[in-house]
Amino acid sequence: MKSDRACSRPIGAVTLALCALVFSVARSHAQTDPLPSWSDTAPKKAIVAFVEKVTRNGSPDFVPAAERIATFDNDGTLWAEQPMYFQLLFALDRVKALAPQHPEWKEKEPFASLLKGDVKGALAGGEPAVAQIVMATHAGMTTEEFDTIVRDWAASARHPKTGRLYTEMVYQPMLELLVYLRANGFKTFIVSGGGIEFMRPWTEKVYGIPPEQVVGSSIKTKFELRDGKPVLVRLPEVNFVDDKAGKPVGIHQHIGRRPIAAFGNSDGDLQMLQWTAAGSGARFALLVHHTDADREWAYDRQSSIGRLDAALDEAQAKGWTVVDMKKDWNIIYPFEKQQ
Amino acid sequence: MKSDRACSRPIGAVTLALCALVFSVARSHAQTDPLPSWSDTAPKKAIVAFVEKVTRNGSPDFVPAAERIATFDNDGTLWAEQPMYFQLLFALDRVKALAPQHPEWKEKEPFASLLKGDVKGALAGGEPAVAQIVMATHAGMTTEEFDTIVRDWAASARHPKTGRLYTEMVYQPMLELLVYLRANGFKTFIVSGGGIEFMRPWTEKVYGIPPEQVVGSSIKTKFELRDGKPVLVRLPEVNFVDDKAGKPVGIHQHIGRRPIAAFGNSDGDLQMLQWTAAGSGARFALLVHHTDADREWAYDRQSSIGRLDAALDEAQAKGWTVVDMKKDWNIIYPFEKQQ
Repeated sequence: MKSDRACSRPIGAVTLALCALVFSVARSHAQTDPLPSWSDTAPKKAIVAFVEKVTRNGSPDFVPAAERIATFDNDGTLWAEQPMYFQLLFALDRVKALAPQHPEWKEKEPFASLLKGDVKGALAGGEPAVAQIVMATHAGMTTEEFDTIVRDWAASARHPKTGRLYTEMVYQPMLELLVYLRANGFKTFIVSGGGIEFMRPWTEKVYGIPPEQVVGSSIKTKFELRDGKPVLVRLPEVNFVDDKAGKPVGIHQHIGRRPIAAFGNSDGDLQMLQWTAAGSGARFALLVHHTDADREWAYDRQSSIGRLDAALDEAQAKGWTVVDMKKDWNIIYPFEKQQ
Repeated sequence: MKSDRACSRPIGAVTLALCALVFSVARSHAQTDPLPSWSDTAPKKAIVAFVEKVTRNGSPDFVPAAERIATFDNDGTLWAEQPMYFQLLFALDRVKALAPQHPEWKEKEPFASLLKGDVKGALAGGEPAVAQIVMATHAGMTTEEFDTIVRDWAASARHPKTGRLYTEMVYQPMLELLVYLRANGFKTFIVSGGGIEFMRPWTEKVYGIPPEQVVGSSIKTKFELRDGKPVLVRLPEVNFVDDKAGKPVGIHQHIGRRPIAAFGNSDGDLQMLQWTAAGSGARFALLVHHTDADREWAYDRQSSIGRLDAALDEAQAKGWTVVDMKKDWNIIYPFEKQQ
């Protein structure tokens, strides 16, 4: 920053040449570090070593580009997930928005508690309550209508703690990792327990991951002709749960080959990491451990959201890479860079 | 061929230069026709006009590369489907191969008829009989085991009429079309009623379509640890039928955006074509009409395999492109070129 200002003042030819040289060196150094938000600690070194060995021609671990599949969990791995999964916050926002069309909700749980601002009371009903909220807010419209609803929400809704757009609460080190992997011929996929249609409207812009490379949970849809116009209607019926043992199933269904690298943060990712790591040849498995209560949140074995317990044990036993967010990431959110 | 020989004789500098010129013109002409197996009739002209208008910068119909999604049916569109779907022939071959492990099949229909060589008798049981044959041959093994079974079959089994490998009975004009579309920034997908795992082992080699761009019907799979090793086991339970109204559902599930071009040959493709054609902006819908009883097969409205009836009417009503195989394709199979 200082030398930048010095170089922008009116200066002589020699100084100018020197400035150009210094800058070119600085820029070339910046270009050689594809992961600047990662501290120079073990996880970054492990990532770079893995990428180099699978991409270097003649390396015994070389993997053809077509087979360089990398899968990423979303909640807690690419973006934050506290104080609760962002999709649940979306559903709560939708209940409020839809309440005027549903006067009966004033008397009916879990909606009644929710509309009084009592989220805990509403969620006390457990999974059936959550399912009711999800179906009331995610089904009953066409796929195009739902796409618009999600886009509008993503462009305007604010996180209760940071006041940021949810799509701003993505992890800068992971954005760099996605770019770095793609620059090395990897095809990057999301494999998330979250809703596939909740992610697709914004993953291309935010992560550079196109809709066809997003795998997630889904409800059933039905093809219909409405006044001769074909539509897909979202039905209040679970189609697929892309979590835990469902992740390798979802990977197989959508991608049809085993990833060589997988990235997660919770026990919901354990089977994806097992499936990835068990393939032949070089493999990479990484867990993000949320250890930074100041810049983000600190949680693991006891958390109801993003619990990391069995997977942490297995990572330690098998030598998978574990990111200590506090220590290994020098920036967490992209907006920190602009402050 | 003749001028090739003339030019390979010892010759003077001027002749050489002339030869080089002639060749370069010939080669450049060959390069400018990306669809040489298509006759210069309306379908070829419609394809080229569509591709040019969606790819030309500044065209009012320009479509960004990321949205250039093209979907292809497989049976009857990319490869042949007579005298019955090749996957059914695969299942019959598998019944014979598995018979020694199933002595009870000698007394049990539809297997008993099948093992006596009475295919018609076996299939007389209709859909339940077919389902029994499919589940007995497609389920009960891991995904990796099934992959090997399909690869071995594709590398060795022969078509009852032509004596060719099934993967040789693909349509040369469609292979050229796939390459042409990809060269113009399209992402090509298969969207087939056939089994997704029956296609993936060979589509990359035969069509240049990687596993992650294959959409098809599927049975359920289950993640298990066997002696600590993760496997996906194929269960005898239908997961998804990617046919008729299922095709837009499968497209939405796997690709997450609407194709701008779709290619089919039967009523099973009608809804995919409707869904594709109903999007905004330039759209292309094509049906392959099997009209060549000499070089291939001729069938449409009355056929039990690949029936083309309602979709043919709708194509005519809506002005979709219909390929008359006899008239519009000057080569059908790649091996004709080598004869």
